[in-house]
Amino acid sequence: MALGVSPRVVALGGGHGLSSSLRALRLMSDQLTAVVTVADDGGSSGRLREELDVLPPGDLRMALAALCDDSEWGRTWSDMLQHRFRSAGSLDNHAMGNLLIVTLWQQLGDTVQGLDWVGRLLGARGRVLPMASVPLVVEADVRCGADAELQHVVGQSRVAKTEGRIEQLRLVPAAPPACPESVDAIRAADWVVLGPGSWFSSVLVHLLVPDLARALYETSARICVTLNLAPERGETQDLTATDHLEALARHAPGLRVDAVLADPSAVEDIAELEDAAAQMGARVLMRQVRRGDGSPLHDPLRLAAAFRDVFEGVYGDVPGA
Amino acid sequence: MALGVSPRVVALGGGHGLSSSLRALRLMSDQLTAVVTVADDGGSSGRLREELDVLPPGDLRMALAALCDDSEWGRTWSDMLQHRFRSAGSLDNHAMGNLLIVTLWQQLGDTVQGLDWVGRLLGARGRVLPMASVPLVVEADVRCGADAELQHVVGQSRVAKTEGRIEQLRLVPAAPPACPESVDAIRAADWVVLGPGSWFSSVLVHLLVPDLARALYETSARICVTLNLAPERGETQDLTATDHLEALARHAPGLRVDAVLADPSAVEDIAELEDAAAQMGARVLMRQVRRGDGSPLHDPLRLAAAFRDVFEGVYGDVPGA
Repeated sequence: MALGVSPRVVALGGGHGLSSSLRALRLMSDQLTAVVTVADDGGSSGRLREELDVLPPGDLRMALAALCDDSEWGRTWSDMLQHRFRSAGSLDNHAMGNLLIVTLWQQLGDTVQGLDWVGRLLGARGRVLPMASVPLVVEADVRCGADAELQHVVGQSRVAKTEGRIEQLRLVPAAPPACPESVDAIRAADWVVLGPGSWFSSVLVHLLVPDLARALYETSARICVTLNLAPERGETQDLTATDHLEALARHAPGLRVDAVLADPSAVEDIAELEDAAAQMGARVLMRQVRRGDGSPLHDPLRLAAAFRDVFEGVYGDVPGA
Repeated sequence: MALGVSPRVVALGGGHGLSSSLRALRLMSDQLTAVVTVADDGGSSGRLREELDVLPPGDLRMALAALCDDSEWGRTWSDMLQHRFRSAGSLDNHAMGNLLIVTLWQQLGDTVQGLDWVGRLLGARGRVLPMASVPLVVEADVRCGADAELQHVVGQSRVAKTEGRIEQLRLVPAAPPACPESVDAIRAADWVVLGPGSWFSSVLVHLLVPDLARALYETSARICVTLNLAPERGETQDLTATDHLEALARHAPGLRVDAVLADPSAVEDIAELEDAAAQMGARVLMRQVRRGDGSPLHDPLRLAAAFRDVFEGVYGDVPGA
């Protein structure tokens, strides 16, 4: 990748974590693709996949909203997309954008075309694709204490909230077909960004789609893992930054990683993290990427600057880190 | 109005009838405003006004779809607007455009702004406004036979289907506030077009909104009444073309009308119709405006040409009429 040319970036994830990385990456790439989980089974998305037999649209909607053009036009339609009905009736809690996405799918008969039309509506700074062509169910074997029996937890919303240690993650159907455009995007990328996000249920699930995993192993793109800012209640509440990286290594044995991006406030033992990263071939870049107000949220500008450091190989320490 | 300048036209109505006149008028005016009934209480609109306490959006949606730009962009978003969900669940029969319009109302807190944004989305060839600022209920006193007692029928969907003779039409609330932009449009128009459409429940109801009625009496615009192509099952099934005009005269005593546009196939007694028109100050223009396939639907091009004849005062007989 030549300096000054916008890198082709693919971001993998789902939910709020993916939105955070997209809000940063859109500032530095005009060839951006989001590859998004389609395993949501809660809330508006869960009801729609049940009632209408479609991919759960919620994570796709959030990714599209994060990429909206920063104009009155883009913000108005992004707000429309994110609007939720509130009532005592059956529309309560449905997100408008979920209904719009499903409408375009039914109208056009094509998942990717439907998402591209929402992207055109928003003037989106990038493309949003599903990771798989079929709705997925996430399952996990979970141990809630060293001597406890394994529990079988079914559904992304339950897995994300489980308080035990996830020992095994599965998708139903197993080995689902990837969205071909997602595979192509990974193979053609300069950089692939994994995370932040619900580590098992939104990030690592991508590795359980065989065509996506193969593309990640075979692509000439470099890979950046972006760690979370704080342990989430639920699936990762007792995991350190290093545990996150090791969970990735377990789910993708031998996967080469080039960079690990972490906020100093979220890393207990930097040396341990650097060791784990080195075993995957990666260097660690420590940058304050969180907001200044103490909230566990990414600042889009700081995160964008950190991605630029990663992509251009600028690993020097920053003062105060 | 000088020749060659696009006339400022306001079309009053609702439902499929209004869509027909809009599809014609958009071909000959780029200063077109639709003033639309907000009394629907059936189907998707009825459920939305009940569940979310909003204006029923359905007639507004149909008018917007009729005005969409004739491009891939306009047609795609118009199809989106008209899409209906089909399921065994609670979304069944909801029209996507109804949900979009309500979303923009809730998001922007302004009825007219919300409709204008949908218009911008579609590249609409004109503006769509509600006739009143509050949801309305249509009521009618109906006699089902000369000696039968008066029946009290409540709700636009029931009034439209009633098979008796409508002797009195009312709105609840009585004397509702008009949408100010609708009043302004009527006052500033060159031509106002009334009908076609469900005669009592979609056309004459406009005269029950005091500010709209006053604007119709006071405007310098000329008024064209477009009669229906065929009696509708329900509210007007036994009414002749002349009966339609006389019902208008009863609901708007002394209203000056300039032109009555009718299809020869829908007029039993031309002389009688001309007499009734003359009493309101109007001339009758007879033109084939229906499709050639025998269906009781307007052909947009024929109707547009007939409007041009009306607006330019070309009343000569056409061959074969």
